[in-house]
Amino acid sequence: MQIPTLAVVGVGLIGGSIGLAAKRRRLAGRVLGVGRHPDSLQRARHLGAIDEGLLDLGAAAARADVVVFCTPVDRIAEQALAVAPRCRPGTLLTDAGSTKAAIVGALDGRLPEPVQFVGSHPLAGSEKRGPEHARADLFEGRLAVVTPTERTPPAALERTLRLWRGLGARVRVMAPEEHDQALAVTSHLPHLVAAALAGVLPDELRELTATGFRDTTRVAAGDPALWTGIFEQNREAVLAALRRLQARLEGFRAALQAGDRRALADLLTEAKGVRDALGH
Amino acid sequence: MQIPTLAVVGVGLIGGSIGLAAKRRRLAGRVLGVGRHPDSLQRARHLGAIDEGLLDLGAAAARADVVVFCTPVDRIAEQALAVAPRCRPGTLLTDAGSTKAAIVGALDGRLPEPVQFVGSHPLAGSEKRGPEHARADLFEGRLAVVTPTERTPPAALERTLRLWRGLGARVRVMAPEEHDQALAVTSHLPHLVAAALAGVLPDELRELTATGFRDTTRVAAGDPALWTGIFEQNREAVLAALRRLQARLEGFRAALQAGDRRALADLLTEAKGVRDALGH
Repeated sequence: MQIPTLAVVGVGLIGGSIGLAAKRRRLAGRVLGVGRHPDSLQRARHLGAIDEGLLDLGAAAARADVVVFCTPVDRIAEQALAVAPRCRPGTLLTDAGSTKAAIVGALDGRLPEPVQFVGSHPLAGSEKRGPEHARADLFEGRLAVVTPTERTPPAALERTLRLWRGLGARVRVMAPEEHDQALAVTSHLPHLVAAALAGVLPDELRELTATGFRDTTRVAAGDPALWTGIFEQNREAVLAALRRLQARLEGFRAALQAGDRRALADLLTEAKGVRDALGH
Repeated sequence: MQIPTLAVVGVGLIGGSIGLAAKRRRLAGRVLGVGRHPDSLQRARHLGAIDEGLLDLGAAAARADVVVFCTPVDRIAEQALAVAPRCRPGTLLTDAGSTKAAIVGALDGRLPEPVQFVGSHPLAGSEKRGPEHARADLFEGRLAVVTPTERTPPAALERTLRLWRGLGARVRVMAPEEHDQALAVTSHLPHLVAAALAGVLPDELRELTATGFRDTTRVAAGDPALWTGIFEQNREAVLAALRRLQARLEGFRAALQAGDRRALADLLTEAKGVRDALGH
């Protein structure tokens, strides 16, 4: 048993899946779940995602060897700063947030010496929320990006990599800023585009949608508050990605307007090549 | 048995599924499949989607009571015009094309009297191609739009509605132009957006995509030649839909740029409302 006591803060899809995977894979001896609502903690416990539910983050952190913050990105740094003084020496703090530079920047060098924070982001999840959607195999074969800085002790990085590998993920180490620029294109931009597309559908056309519209807009069902925080924390990189998309759309518009069949076919062929390379 | 002999022109996903459904649901006595490649006809026959494969469209049409064109939208009208003289009196021609005004406009009043064409579009399908992906239940619970004109004899419309109902679909009657304007928003625009998004992904970021990027770009794997034809035939309506999307994206950009958390949250909340209303 690698981690005697693991605490997950937030027992939704990600936190619940970490708990399920940690128990199923015997990575942790005991899983503490921290939440703000007794009912979601109870649901998570009934689902076997956690062994014990706590409303008091500090009390859970004080008992944990590893704490994983699975809360909205704009709450993670403040939570880590608040609980660090109550942690035992050697406690590892990490997270599952979709942005890294703001969180890592707010914590790097700011925690009491014997407690370490290493930023993480498992590329798994969906537009669904709540422990009911948690799955023990959520991280299997998925990539978890871990974002150390120059100050990160190698041993803390190593423990973080072992955590995600232990949950079934592949790992990749990147700088926080590099992560954010990449995810702006691969995750934040698709969300923005899906939301924009959903936003132009009038109610009366709902019946005339099929799988194409539904696939393309699926992520727009994600939690608006969560995503507002992500967009705010990764504003510049998302704006840069959006400018590239807007230029691309303008290329489509110009080809359509001009009736340039060849240009349109070329744009579609290039896109198919990219999409085919991703697999299902 | 409602249709003694049904011919499907094109034995891919749609044509193959029509054949499978017609046989499974005992809608047709015999299903003829027409294609340009002996091997796909043979595969369709082995899969049970057709009873007989023919390379000669005219020969198949001459034997059929109902002919369904499941070919690219820019080939349907010319094929129908070419085979109509060989059809027996009373033969019904229809199609499964994603655009309607151009096809219906090219055929309305142009066929020999005893042969009738009624435009159709079943809102089913995917980015996949070939008879291997055909499914007998592809149309179950899906909507098939049927687009008669003032010249369409009521009996021909009724036969077309019975065809799609017989294949398991719900039906809706719309004018061809109304169909095209609706589908520009619900199907053609999502394809364009997905292709634009796929087009901005650099190869080196491929590993950093997850389900969000994959869902949002899934349709971009569709056949470029097929979609070039669709965009060309529905150019004006797609351009109008694209202008609305571009304005919406500009709204997101402005909110991000200004750091207007409230405006961003409002846009995301509105999008979530639309997407939630669509269901899975």
